[in-house]
Amino acid sequence: MGDKCGQQSLIFSQPPVIISGANIVGPEEGEGPLGSYFDWILDDPLFGEKSWEMAECKMLEESAKLALQKIELQTQDVDFFLAGDLLNQIISSNYAARGLEIPFFGLFGACSTFAEALLLGSMLMDGGFAHRVLLGSCSHHLSAERQFRYPVEQGVQRSATAQWTTTASGVLVLEAQGEGPRVNMGTVGKVVDMGISDVNNMGAAMAPAAADTILTHFQDTETNPDSYDVIVTGDLGSVGQAALVELLKQRGFDLGEKLQDCGILIYDTCEQDMHAGGSGCGCAAAVFTGLFLRKLREKQHQNLLLVATGALMSPISSQQGESIPAIAHAVAVSS
Amino acid sequence: MGDKCGQQSLIFSQPPVIISGANIVGPEEGEGPLGSYFDWILDDPLFGEKSWEMAECKMLEESAKLALQKIELQTQDVDFFLAGDLLNQIISSNYAARGLEIPFFGLFGACSTFAEALLLGSMLMDGGFAHRVLLGSCSHHLSAERQFRYPVEQGVQRSATAQWTTTASGVLVLEAQGEGPRVNMGTVGKVVDMGISDVNNMGAAMAPAAADTILTHFQDTETNPDSYDVIVTGDLGSVGQAALVELLKQRGFDLGEKLQDCGILIYDTCEQDMHAGGSGCGCAAAVFTGLFLRKLREKQHQNLLLVATGALMSPISSQQGESIPAIAHAVAVSS
Repeated sequence: MGDKCGQQSLIFSQPPVIISGANIVGPEEGEGPLGSYFDWILDDPLFGEKSWEMAECKMLEESAKLALQKIELQTQDVDFFLAGDLLNQIISSNYAARGLEIPFFGLFGACSTFAEALLLGSMLMDGGFAHRVLLGSCSHHLSAERQFRYPVEQGVQRSATAQWTTTASGVLVLEAQGEGPRVNMGTVGKVVDMGISDVNNMGAAMAPAAADTILTHFQDTETNPDSYDVIVTGDLGSVGQAALVELLKQRGFDLGEKLQDCGILIYDTCEQDMHAGGSGCGCAAAVFTGLFLRKLREKQHQNLLLVATGALMSPISSQQGESIPAIAHAVAVSS
Repeated sequence: MGDKCGQQSLIFSQPPVIISGANIVGPEEGEGPLGSYFDWILDDPLFGEKSWEMAECKMLEESAKLALQKIELQTQDVDFFLAGDLLNQIISSNYAARGLEIPFFGLFGACSTFAEALLLGSMLMDGGFAHRVLLGSCSHHLSAERQFRYPVEQGVQRSATAQWTTTASGVLVLEAQGEGPRVNMGTVGKVVDMGISDVNNMGAAMAPAAADTILTHFQDTETNPDSYDVIVTGDLGSVGQAALVELLKQRGFDLGEKLQDCGILIYDTCEQDMHAGGSGCGCAAAVFTGLFLRKLREKQHQNLLLVATGALMSPISSQQGESIPAIAHAVAVSS
């Protein structure tokens, strides 16, 4: 039985345990500074499929199978699967759910989806509705580019503030009991829109949502920056992170080195020419299940706050002149 | 504190109460046989906006405000908003959530979204995470046509098995205590795909998912057709309903007149030339919050099973030759 806490936050009475995690990334992500933390690095972004979309779907499905394999479980041992992605009608998740045959909740929160799934999955566990939950999200650079921007074959020059949609998927398995990091609390984001309409600067659109959720989390749960070893945003990139630092400073918070961002961590942004950094539903999913899950297990981090951010526009809303609504969900995980 | 029941079902220990509902529909839906059950019938499908997409967003936002107004509540009296729609990146729900400023979970389950939101919302309530939840879904014929099929200006002839995406939105407010119909149980659907790839025959693609969820619900919860006055699918249309009747008969169940379908009910399919009937995220939402909520309140129905079905393909997956995965979620509501 859980509890609402403050305006937007939740505290879990029996914190769900992260008993497994797995991820698959594309070639660029494998060549980046976190390469050694990922489970499976693809040589070929098509992953043996006929289209990038079906490759993305396979990445999510195979990550899920791998996360279960690691703990010697089958898909039928899982009560629910919660997932989402960036593609129209979240087809990657739908087709992955078809293959997995687990009762399914489809989600859309753009790049915040991984945290949305982790929050909802934890609520289902702590509410007594599930013994074991599988959750995840994914994105693919090549399917996202042609859907949201230009066909990559066209070779359009990227803006300096643009983020690079990662080719990545990440999945977690939660259980009511067991050994592993625990999901203690969460803060559900509100949609925040400060009027940014430049789709090549999503970091700036998402930073106010991240600030709003972090500040609300501190207030609701009576925590502060000292409560956490690391506060991980996903995926503001360098432009968005700078905006977040400024917004938090205006409210009296200097997080300093504690503030990290999945979109900055996943690439060597200079060497790899990734401009403002990574983005996409798979970025926070792969960086959390790769880097941070290991650091939590090895007790290098005791208390982590994951703040996954999403830009909730579509090409249609942008073409119609609408600004970019953004959201951030926060999840507190302890080792 | 809830309980998992059987393979895919849930029983609520403190069944959430439906304390309010509201809906808005377009001109065709208002002219149909259920016209008198709807709260607000639009004369103009643009709803004073510049685009159909923004009209759809406004329909969801205004339905939400209306549902709260009816019980003299403000948006800040609600803990969470759960919503989804058919548009790419669920922009109708995202922009409605921006206007409502309620902590938000974005969902995608195609035409099953209303039941998905009702299930998840009820779990959050019964799990102790919320005192009051707002949930809903919407669709718009004109935004859906140009996204999924052809621009309506082109005047393409519709297939006889095609369904008509409704212009409709529907919203419910759940509360832990109070007077009104109660959400007692639910069954979370698996993705079912029997290989249908004709996007003009979504009813046939969705019928096996509906059958699977209904049969699983009976088995998991030890119920049978006698347990319900009415079993409402949304939105199989006439072709899909005929397939469902056949599939259930093969398993020994004849639901007869008890089986109703939101997509068939919403239009006079002959007079209105709607072919196989209505569909879209807003169809089950408007028919449930309009017709069935009233019948439950007036005790004309004591026990209702809502089985909302969704076809989870996208134009991209169809163009790539993929078949149509489908899902159905069931929610049991008593008067």
